[in-house]
Amino acid sequence: MGAIAMNSDTSAKIIDGKAVAKQIREEIAADISRMKEAIGVVPGLAVILVGSRKDSQTYVRNKKKACEGVGITSHEVHLPEDCTEEEVLRHISYFNSDPSVHGILVQLPLPRHMNEEKILNNVCIEKDVDGFHPLNIGRLAMQGREPLFVPCTPKGCMELLHRYGVEVKGKRAVVIGRSNIVGMPASLLLQRQNATISIVHSYTRNPEEITRQADIVISAAGVANLVRGSWIKPGAIVIDVGINPVDTDSTWAMPMMVVLANARLITPIGSGCLEQIDICYVRPFN
Amino acid sequence: MGAIAMNSDTSAKIIDGKAVAKQIREEIAADISRMKEAIGVVPGLAVILVGSRKDSQTYVRNKKKACEGVGITSHEVHLPEDCTEEEVLRHISYFNSDPSVHGILVQLPLPRHMNEEKILNNVCIEKDVDGFHPLNIGRLAMQGREPLFVPCTPKGCMELLHRYGVEVKGKRAVVIGRSNIVGMPASLLLQRQNATISIVHSYTRNPEEITRQADIVISAAGVANLVRGSWIKPGAIVIDVGINPVDTDSTWAMPMMVVLANARLITPIGSGCLEQIDICYVRPFN
Repeated sequence: MGAIAMNSDTSAKIIDGKAVAKQIREEIAADISRMKEAIGVVPGLAVILVGSRKDSQTYVRNKKKACEGVGITSHEVHLPEDCTEEEVLRHISYFNSDPSVHGILVQLPLPRHMNEEKILNNVCIEKDVDGFHPLNIGRLAMQGREPLFVPCTPKGCMELLHRYGVEVKGKRAVVIGRSNIVGMPASLLLQRQNATISIVHSYTRNPEEITRQADIVISAAGVANLVRGSWIKPGAIVIDVGINPVDTDSTWAMPMMVVLANARLITPIGSGCLEQIDICYVRPFN
Repeated sequence: MGAIAMNSDTSAKIIDGKAVAKQIREEIAADISRMKEAIGVVPGLAVILVGSRKDSQTYVRNKKKACEGVGITSHEVHLPEDCTEEEVLRHISYFNSDPSVHGILVQLPLPRHMNEEKILNNVCIEKDVDGFHPLNIGRLAMQGREPLFVPCTPKGCMELLHRYGVEVKGKRAVVIGRSNIVGMPASLLLQRQNATISIVHSYTRNPEEITRQADIVISAAGVANLVRGSWIKPGAIVIDVGINPVDTDSTWAMPMMVVLANARLITPIGSGCLEQIDICYVRPFN
């Protein structure tokens, strides 16, 4: 996809996440096909789902579908809400030692009676495709180190910026939200690419003022319609990652998804924190 | 030490690092004395120094002196510049399994022929008192996780802020520099305490403008006299961490301090990035 000059005119341009996702899926399918021919192996992804949350079930279903579409073998385990921590750990241990499984995803959130930290720490670091292991996060934060995997949603944001030819180096970037899953790793990724980052969160006193300074905004807050048009500098690039339940069903549908082979990652991008504004913004993948 | 109202008048107040260090040393000496009485054990710190850099020798000598002052047993190994990586690893392994050693410091920088990452990764995580292991940095970055140790210089900065009653929550904090040793962990610590952080580095286009927004500035850049008085908002709290060789010998003298007992850590604070300005600033420990 050719780079698009985002700032050359004053009308809003929309980053077409759906088209980017399609292109990435095609690239991955070709990679996997070549890999199969060359070494006779295809990537395998194991997903562990505990309980029956609707949204988690949707995510898992979409991951499976995305795997099938590109030639990744998917392994799925669905455990009941009231299963024990030990059962989850047993499945992780099994997948850790299964050579046909190259990545393991434990769908979050886990039921309240389980220790999330303990469970995630048991996923072996070489198969931590979610990149949530503190060792991966530490490497992401450190100069001169490389994480084995990068959390998929912030990685997807960076991929969108790159595929639209947005130069990150030297830009002011504001990340709204500091979750372990999106906001924090997004800020680390932007900084790795030499953006000047600021992180806005629930204790920030003047979020509009800070956000208005940004050339790039990644909005990943758990509050619907938090970011208003007045927060955004004309010409800024905005990626809206938040998923918040609003009155239409569609904002919960997060169908797209990709999965990746060899740490080149794909992501669901949702919608929700951002008011519909007349500035460049990212269309959700769905 | 009572909290000091930093913003109540317009004249500059100086944070007296020397007095804070003295107070902390006294507290630690008392802790260790109680510990010895209660369980018959005192903390042990092992320091591995490779080569004969003057500054490194000074740091190590001061660490040893600080240990002696508070009752920490110190173990020191001094290896020649041309020793092998394996020799360093052998000493680490020895200290890892020595129950009288509770913390291991490998003095950086190591000679060029050594793989720093490999060597640091061999320090067992429970004895990584420098907090430089990526697992510790990852835990520092993540909400809901706790690092076993926090790098001493940024920890010292936070300690100075706390002992002077500076409220961090909700404040705009700017960290100048993003080194693995100071800038990056300082920004993570400030964020953990709910500051709104921005990180200024060599690719930042308008460092003065961003720094001037800060209520708290931590300056940890490798450039002498980078930060000018005009960069600082009146009433801001400034901590100058950089150590840069300038024309007097004294700025290289960094005599003060490490001590640790139960992960409560103290630190050397140097001088260098900051122009002498008529605003609150931290007096170096030396």
